[in-house]
Amino acid sequence: MRDCIRVMVLGTGQMGLGIARLLREKSGIELVGVYARRQERNGLDLGPLIGFDKAIGIAVSNDLAATLEQTWPHIAIQATCSTVDDAAGEITTLIEHGVHVISIAEQMAFPAASSPDIAEQLHRLAVTNQVSVLGTGINPGFVLDLLVIMLSGVCANIQSITARRVNDLSAYGHAVMRDQGIGLSPAAFQKGLENKTVVGHIGFMQSIHMIAAALGWEIDRIEERREPIISQVRRETPVITIEPGQVAGCYHTAVAYREGKPVITLIHPQQICPGLEAVETGDFIEINGTPNIRLSGTPEIPGGQATCALAVNMIPRVLTAAPGLHTMVDLPVPAAMLGDARQWVNRYKRGQSYD
Amino acid sequence: MRDCIRVMVLGTGQMGLGIARLLREKSGIELVGVYARRQERNGLDLGPLIGFDKAIGIAVSNDLAATLEQTWPHIAIQATCSTVDDAAGEITTLIEHGVHVISIAEQMAFPAASSPDIAEQLHRLAVTNQVSVLGTGINPGFVLDLLVIMLSGVCANIQSITARRVNDLSAYGHAVMRDQGIGLSPAAFQKGLENKTVVGHIGFMQSIHMIAAALGWEIDRIEERREPIISQVRRETPVITIEPGQVAGCYHTAVAYREGKPVITLIHPQQICPGLEAVETGDFIEINGTPNIRLSGTPEIPGGQATCALAVNMIPRVLTAAPGLHTMVDLPVPAAMLGDARQWVNRYKRGQSYD
Repeated sequence: MRDCIRVMVLGTGQMGLGIARLLREKSGIELVGVYARRQERNGLDLGPLIGFDKAIGIAVSNDLAATLEQTWPHIAIQATCSTVDDAAGEITTLIEHGVHVISIAEQMAFPAASSPDIAEQLHRLAVTNQVSVLGTGINPGFVLDLLVIMLSGVCANIQSITARRVNDLSAYGHAVMRDQGIGLSPAAFQKGLENKTVVGHIGFMQSIHMIAAALGWEIDRIEERREPIISQVRRETPVITIEPGQVAGCYHTAVAYREGKPVITLIHPQQICPGLEAVETGDFIEINGTPNIRLSGTPEIPGGQATCALAVNMIPRVLTAAPGLHTMVDLPVPAAMLGDARQWVNRYKRGQSYD
Repeated sequence: MRDCIRVMVLGTGQMGLGIARLLREKSGIELVGVYARRQERNGLDLGPLIGFDKAIGIAVSNDLAATLEQTWPHIAIQATCSTVDDAAGEITTLIEHGVHVISIAEQMAFPAASSPDIAEQLHRLAVTNQVSVLGTGINPGFVLDLLVIMLSGVCANIQSITARRVNDLSAYGHAVMRDQGIGLSPAAFQKGLENKTVVGHIGFMQSIHMIAAALGWEIDRIEERREPIISQVRRETPVITIEPGQVAGCYHTAVAYREGKPVITLIHPQQICPGLEAVETGDFIEINGTPNIRLSGTPEIPGGQATCALAVNMIPRVLTAAPGLHTMVDLPVPAAMLGDARQWVNRYKRGQSYD
């Protein structure tokens, strides 16, 4: 059998380390390098960072180009940021080194929604360098878009779509609490929305554009709303405690209109400890069409675990895709990669080598 | 804009006519011909068959090659049969005329499961003739396989999968009643299993092989069971009435073993009027893994409507696929085709023309 698929990870936050840990468990894959933006991580061995007792001989580096030239990965998974603007520099470096890219930056799930020019540049550069680039993640990238699109495939016609993801942020850290305004007073939440320190969910634009493009709908406008979820009770997580009357999360919605009518409604309330007020978490999809489709799962698919798994599971799909910038809609469906990763690359291969 | 996508339908049963009706409603698509196996349909105008008051100028023909040579479709949808053996002749003729094929024959969803040699021949022939061939349908092809596979994509690891589809056959005709043993005594049902007049669901082998291949599992053996659903009450449909003690349907299950353990369990009880005994119909998927996934929809996705829609919605995917024989796992996810069909062909096109 051919050599292992050589993979590099960008990012040493919760996601980057989760992905690195998972890559180490997969057969047919070799984790060859880890890049971090944080200066204080430079030179550290990855082992202790992912829960091993000892060093494993992979040093975290702040120098992306040098790591690429030392380790020559076939593919890299980027987990360093959320926006296309922020992601594009690292992705450009990867492409120019002939490395395929999977990014979990939220906006990269459908980069043309926020940054059509950068998306076009990345696409051309990827084609020139004969590599493939994909944005993925649980949301955007799966629950509120790809799953909706797939279910639409059994419909002859559709009037409207409503998808709702109710999740629990209790396991997350300070950055997530800040982005959702958790712990603020309702007035401070309002001010946070105005000065954009409270952002809510990043991904509605991407999900809506992905659905609309897949179905062939032209969208007139999108309306987003962010409301504070004001707690009736005390809620406590490892990183924050809030009192009744404080903000427990952000109730974020987006509605897309077509010919003046609401056709896509996405609802994503994110909060800590939803169970304390008997809020049931879950993923809920409703398509009003021919036929009507209702699908739901409770509790919600856990976001962090799922994003790490998706990024890793998409490796063979990206290695065998046509060169260029892709979305989840362009590639074959994801699947858990439970056997040797190389078998799918061999199976799907169409005249181009990954190594 | 380029010319319409020219489509032909094979089959004038419930599915074939449903597909023909749907094709007539889609923009960018022209229904150019209809082939029927039934002699008595030869020469009939399609209009009255699909509920129109008058003729629409498309005559049903019993001569497949002649129809192809007169109408030159880009793609054909086959709805004439269930098995690969039975489907292969028509598909061969289509391929040899340079026509792409979508088949709803159940075994064509994963033809290598029942007929690896024919699958290989069809693949080679399709490659030689530069066309693509796909098998699809609600089940096999979607609920108990593609949807399971897609959900597995968020899993790092999987111990076992259970998928269940509980449906209502009340709307179907005599052929379906016979295949499921509906209306028989329990003893006659048993005899029907032995002489293979009672077949239950066609598709478990295909679904299991599709899932196993997608996940990289080697399956040791598959055990299928068919039990009569004996009615406690009188049940009545437009085509059959059964009394208490008679068979209302077939409870059909399949379990796939890997390393001696059950890893994929598919459960598909099919019956008339399940509501009369308070049986809730629906589609239910459980993945025991990291993370666990539970997804369900009630009632079940209606099989007939969904199969017609899927077959039509896959047209752009098949027109733009690499030449060869494909399964739903090889192609991008299905999506409702709500705009002009040609836009996706233009978008996904990679250097090859459909016409």
